[in-house]
Amino acid sequence: MNTLLLEPHNGVLHITLNRPECRNAMSLQMVNELRTALAQLDSQVRAVVISGAGGHFCAGADVKDLVTAGDQLAALNRAFGALLQEVEAVSQVVIVVLQGAVLGGGFGLACVSDIAIADHKAQFGLPETSLGLLPAQIAPFVVKRIGLTQARRLALTAARFDGVEAERLGLVHFTESDPQALAQRLDALLGQVLQCAPKANARTKALLLASAQQPLGPLLDQAAQWFAEAVTGEEGIEGTQAFVQKRKPGWCK
Amino acid sequence: MNTLLLEPHNGVLHITLNRPECRNAMSLQMVNELRTALAQLDSQVRAVVISGAGGHFCAGADVKDLVTAGDQLAALNRAFGALLQEVEAVSQVVIVVLQGAVLGGGFGLACVSDIAIADHKAQFGLPETSLGLLPAQIAPFVVKRIGLTQARRLALTAARFDGVEAERLGLVHFTESDPQALAQRLDALLGQVLQCAPKANARTKALLLASAQQPLGPLLDQAAQWFAEAVTGEEGIEGTQAFVQKRKPGWCK
Amino acid sequence: MNTLLLEPHNGVLHITLNRPECRNAMSLQMVNELRTALAQLDSQVRAVVISGAGGHFCAGADVKDLVTAGDQLAALNRAFGALLQEVEAVSQVVIVVLQGAVLGGGFGLACVSDIAIADHKAQFGLPETSLGLLPAQIAPFVVKRIGLTQARRLALTAARFDGVEAERLGLVHFTESDPQALAQRLDALLGQVLQCAPKANARTKALLLASAQQPLGPLLDQAAQWFAEAVTGEEGIEGTQAFVQKRKPGWCK
Repeated sequence: MNTLLLEPHNGVLHITLNRPECRNAMSLQMVNELRTALAQLDSQVRAVVISGAGGHFCAGADVKDLVTAGDQLAALNRAFGALLQEVEAVSQVVIVVLQGAVLGGGFGLACVSDIAIADHKAQFGLPETSLGLLPAQIAPFVVKRIGLTQARRLALTAARFDGVEAERLGLVHFTESDPQALAQRLDALLGQVLQCAPKANARTKALLLASAQQPLGPLLDQAAQWFAEAVTGEEGIEGTQAFVQKRKPGWCK
Repeated sequence: MNTLLLEPHNGVLHITLNRPECRNAMSLQMVNELRTALAQLDSQVRAVVISGAGGHFCAGADVKDLVTAGDQLAALNRAFGALLQEVEAVSQVVIVVLQGAVLGGGFGLACVSDIAIADHKAQFGLPETSLGLLPAQIAPFVVKRIGLTQARRLALTAARFDGVEAERLGLVHFTESDPQALAQRLDALLGQVLQCAPKANARTKALLLASAQQPLGPLLDQAAQWFAEAVTGEEGIEGTQAFVQKRKPGWCK
Repeated sequence: MNTLLLEPHNGVLHITLNRPECRNAMSLQMVNELRTALAQLDSQVRAVVISGAGGHFCAGADVKDLVTAGDQLAALNRAFGALLQEVEAVSQVVIVVLQGAVLGGGFGLACVSDIAIADHKAQFGLPETSLGLLPAQIAPFVVKRIGLTQARRLALTAARFDGVEAERLGLVHFTESDPQALAQRLDALLGQVLQCAPKANARTKALLLASAQQPLGPLLDQAAQWFAEAVTGEEGIEGTQAFVQKRKPGWCK
């Protein structure tokens, strides 16, 4: 990988966007490498943490790609949308750590995380229309993340805002005021995630994502089936026994 | 009813989950009795208040049922989902009063209320995946209640949180700091509900629920029809006359 | 126009609801005139500001119309819903300035704006069911604006609340404490909107609105097409050149 650092550790894959010289701008190569990294995830990985090198998360698309794309512009753009779809659908818990620039495509990537934590001074924004461009692949994920009411204001004014405001808007779950506090928050969240059974979390995530778009009745039927499988499956048996025996289940790290 | 106390009073049915010895755990019998109570509601009842005996709302599913369910596990689980669908669809205004444990199935029940009020120290959470299980019937209603962004964090970390946080997340509408304040809040809300015309409220509730899933055009057509019926119906005539005559309409209690 | 003041200025159409003698109650004539004004918008207009004369935004439907409507009640009501659909779909950025009464139909009109700013003492509410009527055309737009959880409480209790609460509920984006601050906020927002490219903003708005209801895959395909068109179109070229040349793009006002 040329644009990413990948560090597996204790059931967690830490992915660092690693183009600090351009605030981790999302080049086509980075998109492709992220898609490859996600496609290679196995069930040993229970959480994925995405952060950026050099004090920034991601400043958006790489303008150089636009210049050289020629008649592949739509395909280039759509590939980024495919990445967002794939990050969203990953069965692992995805946590993003947001510092510095969280703009355009970086904003979009933040929107498909399960848990987002931000530095209070991180800079968020959708600057596209102020450049004559569109937050094309990003817009649907922003609406899904924070709702239409806030998404329309942000996108149509190209407003900049900080981490505190991002938490108020429901874009991120936690804001911290320095790197150390951010690292502690991440550790605490990973600790909580790793106390949850991996398959149960994966199916729960699938149910939550389906809830936003599928009809309720069939979804509840499916959920009941999965519930029965969980109770009688390995994790359900271990979890129930551990509870009775007042010990931690075997999946806890 | 073995698991519920039912107290009709002044147009309001007060339902108390009454298994205080196990923090009102939602047994199959309680599910069935709640469904029966709702099926028997008539138009004299304008609001339903659900609370729990002994300082807790509901600590979730009753584990004993799981053990004895055998090959009926999926059906048992689905019955709870059917209860949530029925509580949501009831034409009366449903108010929940949340104290102590509001966990798992209790959390789900809170999510289908029209109005939720909580003690500031109430304990909310979705502990399922930390036990190797799924918040199967609950997940879709949590997403509908507080949105996907917060639902995924809570479900995938099994986080516990209090009433103040529940209000911040939009799960409950009001938080109070002691039982007396909670009772006063409930009285005030019931007073407001009982100033609203019962049929108008029932149809408005149906419109609001339909808005979350039906296409806009046909829904507005239907709404216009209902509007015309309301204006020329008994409640519309009484309401307009009372307004002109500066008196309270007859439905006020 | 008998019920509206229309003032085009610097790419912005200022529409004032102008029936101060009845707190700008939304008569059928006003509905028709608003629909006409919107239908006549051309691409020179980049933003529409809607406010009310005499210290109020809009106190709701005009009761006189109801009395004289006869068998046209449903059509009368549906026409207001059509107005709300048309305001929502307008390609320009719509900003509402909310003072005094923002009730019933006025509340609905606020819900279809892109950006809403309110006086801290503005009075919001859905009083319909307390009069035996329904917020029929309004209900779906309230759900879309602030979500089902808050919409059901407000509509089923006919609750009144002020601008500060409206901001907390996500109904408005900014609250100010006096008319001068409100005017300054409006100026600042218009300044931001006018730094965004008009066609890019129009297509972004269409994408955001579509995101709330269309399937994700085809929408992202369409968005990629629009992105390519934007990059190679007049605005994209001007925006990119201006960025490189460190000057403001030509569309800035």
